[in-house]
Amino acid sequence: MSELANGWIKRVSVTPPSLKDNTADADRFENALKAVLNIEIADIDLTLSRKLPDLLRKYDFNLRCILFKDHKKWRLAGITGDNYEIVAGLAVDLGTTTVVLRLLDLSTGRTMAEYSFSNPQISIGPDILTRIHFAEKENGLETLNSLIIDGLNRAIAELCRSGNISPSVIYLISVAGNTAMTHLFLGLNPRFLIREPYIPAINRPGCLNARELGINANQSAKVFVFPNTGSYFGGDLVAGILYSGLNRSEKTAILVDVGTNAEVVLGNKNWLVACAGAAGPALEGGVTKMGMMAGPGVIDKVSVDSETGLFSIHTIEDHPPRGICGSGLIDLAAALFLSGMIDIRGKFVPEACKMGLKDKDGSKHFVLVPADASAEGIELSISQVDIDSLIRSKAAMYTILETISSYVGISLSELSTFYVAGTFGSLINPRSAITIGMMPDLSEGTYKSIGNSSLEGAAMILKDCGLMDEIDDIRNCITYIELNVNQDFMNRFSAARFIPHTNLSLFPSVKPVGFSSAQEKD
Amino acid sequence: MSELANGWIKRVSVTPPSLKDNTADADRFENALKAVLNIEIADIDLTLSRKLPDLLRKYDFNLRCILFKDHKKWRLAGITGDNYEIVAGLAVDLGTTTVVLRLLDLSTGRTMAEYSFSNPQISIGPDILTRIHFAEKENGLETLNSLIIDGLNRAIAELCRSGNISPSVIYLISVAGNTAMTHLFLGLNPRFLIREPYIPAINRPGCLNARELGINANQSAKVFVFPNTGSYFGGDLVAGILYSGLNRSEKTAILVDVGTNAEVVLGNKNWLVACAGAAGPALEGGVTKMGMMAGPGVIDKVSVDSETGLFSIHTIEDHPPRGICGSGLIDLAAALFLSGMIDIRGKFVPEACKMGLKDKDGSKHFVLVPADASAEGIELSISQVDIDSLIRSKAAMYTILETISSYVGISLSELSTFYVAGTFGSLINPRSAITIGMMPDLSEGTYKSIGNSSLEGAAMILKDCGLMDEIDDIRNCITYIELNVNQDFMNRFSAARFIPHTNLSLFPSVKPVGFSSAQEKD
Repeated sequence: MSELANGWIKRVSVTPPSLKDNTADADRFENALKAVLNIEIADIDLTLSRKLPDLLRKYDFNLRCILFKDHKKWRLAGITGDNYEIVAGLAVDLGTTTVVLRLLDLSTGRTMAEYSFSNPQISIGPDILTRIHFAEKENGLETLNSLIIDGLNRAIAELCRSGNISPSVIYLISVAGNTAMTHLFLGLNPRFLIREPYIPAINRPGCLNARELGINANQSAKVFVFPNTGSYFGGDLVAGILYSGLNRSEKTAILVDVGTNAEVVLGNKNWLVACAGAAGPALEGGVTKMGMMAGPGVIDKVSVDSETGLFSIHTIEDHPPRGICGSGLIDLAAALFLSGMIDIRGKFVPEACKMGLKDKDGSKHFVLVPADASAEGIELSISQVDIDSLIRSKAAMYTILETISSYVGISLSELSTFYVAGTFGSLINPRSAITIGMMPDLSEGTYKSIGNSSLEGAAMILKDCGLMDEIDDIRNCITYIELNVNQDFMNRFSAARFIPHTNLSLFPSVKPVGFSSAQEKD
Repeated sequence: MSELANGWIKRVSVTPPSLKDNTADADRFENALKAVLNIEIADIDLTLSRKLPDLLRKYDFNLRCILFKDHKKWRLAGITGDNYEIVAGLAVDLGTTTVVLRLLDLSTGRTMAEYSFSNPQISIGPDILTRIHFAEKENGLETLNSLIIDGLNRAIAELCRSGNISPSVIYLISVAGNTAMTHLFLGLNPRFLIREPYIPAINRPGCLNARELGINANQSAKVFVFPNTGSYFGGDLVAGILYSGLNRSEKTAILVDVGTNAEVVLGNKNWLVACAGAAGPALEGGVTKMGMMAGPGVIDKVSVDSETGLFSIHTIEDHPPRGICGSGLIDLAAALFLSGMIDIRGKFVPEACKMGLKDKDGSKHFVLVPADASAEGIELSISQVDIDSLIRSKAAMYTILETISSYVGISLSELSTFYVAGTFGSLINPRSAITIGMMPDLSEGTYKSIGNSSLEGAAMILKDCGLMDEIDDIRNCITYIELNVNQDFMNRFSAARFIPHTNLSLFPSVKPVGFSSAQEKD
């Protein structure tokens, strides 16, 4: 694999000292960086200063410097001389639920290994709000901080073991997470994130020392933390924008990270508008009794045969079904609607559901998988309450999309690309999401799933030192709009609480195949 | 005591956040510093960032910031709100032999306490060269570094105990030391300081974190280390120049730090020329059998009655005599010469010495204090070998002064002020130093003893934030000249090995009162 053209490893030849030039080693080195690379670095770490005289002489004044940068300055993360020594970087997607790490060779950009783990802070609370409240207790913040740092160190140890390298060869780390996770990762007080007027402690943490954060990497390793735009728009989305290329596009596009919190960015190379709002956990499958995160045996796809009305399911890794994830749920709701088994309000239509409908715990359930076909011998079903919850969530999602597009005065139908980010987002079948009116009725080619864009963005900056300025540009370019839940918002939300929408003209492609009674009501 | 007009503590009012202005606390704070003080600070320490949100709100967005600065940037060392909280600074003279600390109130500039201790590295070696060689052994550098850091921490504990304060109220520390001591203090490899071409690891350490250096002070305390100009011209002299005001003077003056190494700066507000050279330990009283450092009972002054030829001595604190320090030795040599008891070559003149001269250990000794008059019942005497050594040292000193003045093309007689720095320097009687030809024959009013100018310079910058730029100016302004021990130097040195000098016209005020035979030889 060839060397990265614009990577962070730079070769520098330093003029050796002489009696006529007794400049100190540190100045001599900094002068060379300036002369050769036109780079002025911030203070050299004491740990590096201590090694510099020996390294300069050991490598005959020819060094490989591992640099990094933030919005303020270039930083020096390490110095090597040997061209064959591995110099690694680590990209981290710091998710509320799942943390994903990618180990990269900084010289070639090659991915060496990946690793993911459940955020250990889940033991304190599955959601950010619980954790922020916990952080206010005595030693609460320290506990949360230790949980994530220890988790990362275990993951680093695992990655290094599998790659047969030492953590000391990791010089650069880039971390993208939401604002609250970033605060907990840095040990910053998250208290004011959730209180009016919602103020982060820091928006641009910049480059920090891994050692200071307690992360096990090279002694001088630097950690770049993606900047936030506000309490509800974090570095994970800035990384996502970078990866999607939204900020480089001539045409206006949208990037949506679907989750408990729906985060949306609309824009092009000239402007970016962002907002975020609670969509509820239903979209992630986190509300229904059979809902769960994607994993082996989890139903991720559901379809209905328009002729026979028979449902078919797909489970991850084809294991026997154990539950359903968000994408399966959206598919299921779409299938139920298309086959007329729920009406435009999302209510079960008993005549259409026939034997599929059951009374359980005092409410109606549609049975998707009978007990004898499931992995654990438990019937997998969805209740009216579950569907109501899903509809509220999808309505919130759509309302957010409408609000942001109307804010900038464009129609959702004008979007050139609709980027769907997130692991969950990548599983969503756009056709189903359109059918239930969660996403706008665009041609399917307009939808582009970009997976874990937060991790990809974090990995990108480890491979191209030119992108740091782009991150600043993105951050400075974003106009964040607060979603005011005013009458206007409520009117849109009410209209979106139908399947696909009160205004069917917005969804010309959605055509229920079952009972037509629902449409007549409109 | 009124508040310092230009101190490091600055009051800053920060605009409180609102829904219309959700800037993060860190940015908000930095913006206020910029708007109110026109100060752009380098990265805020993570420890301070972690406290910032609570402090802002606790003190209602009105803060006292403790700032510091180096050649690169302003630094934030601490934040307080309470106007009555003590904010302290610590000035350190990092001597090879003695370390002196002064604790200051940063708000008023008042000296709170002083403390000095023997440099614990003396246990490794009394001189820098031994220590540098020791630093090359395994763990040698770490050992030397720990010795000085632990010593400082003990001294800080002592100072704080006496001042009834906690080390956590120390926010700023300024350290002035020679280049080698600075290296050992910072844990920097001193190996290349003593090997051609004599390269320091760092010349401008700037501001560092006390915590990183292991110094017990406030968590975010900053340590400014005075910059070196080269391996043999350290931050102690830069501090000395600052204190003497040499760099602000219209008229050309000279600053001399007399010691084993003689360090000399010549100049005015337009230029500064510096050099340093070995003068030998004789001037500090470190060679003669009865020589010792200043302390109770040590002879610091010697005079001779021109009529009777009787010697009288003065001891420190008037204790019975135990030995003699450098200034006493210079006085003694001058007295011996003036009374004709040594000739212009420094050789004893038995006819003049009479009963005072004794043969001991195979060489001639002049007895200054008989056994029964000394503190320990031991005769205090000076040998021919001791005097020869003193003459070599004084000749080296004078040669260095002549060399530097001839380098810039001025005569020593043109100097407006002759600053003598150092504790030892402050004890020297200029008249005696002139008599033996160690210092030029200037009017006594020209000589100005400025004491521990290194400590004074270090203390000055804790009281005036405008002086940091001056330090850079001094450093950048200095032309350091290597003393080439060439034929020219040797010629000057040979001429200076007479008392006061081969060329008596250089010392018109020196008139021996004893035998005139010596003069006839000239």
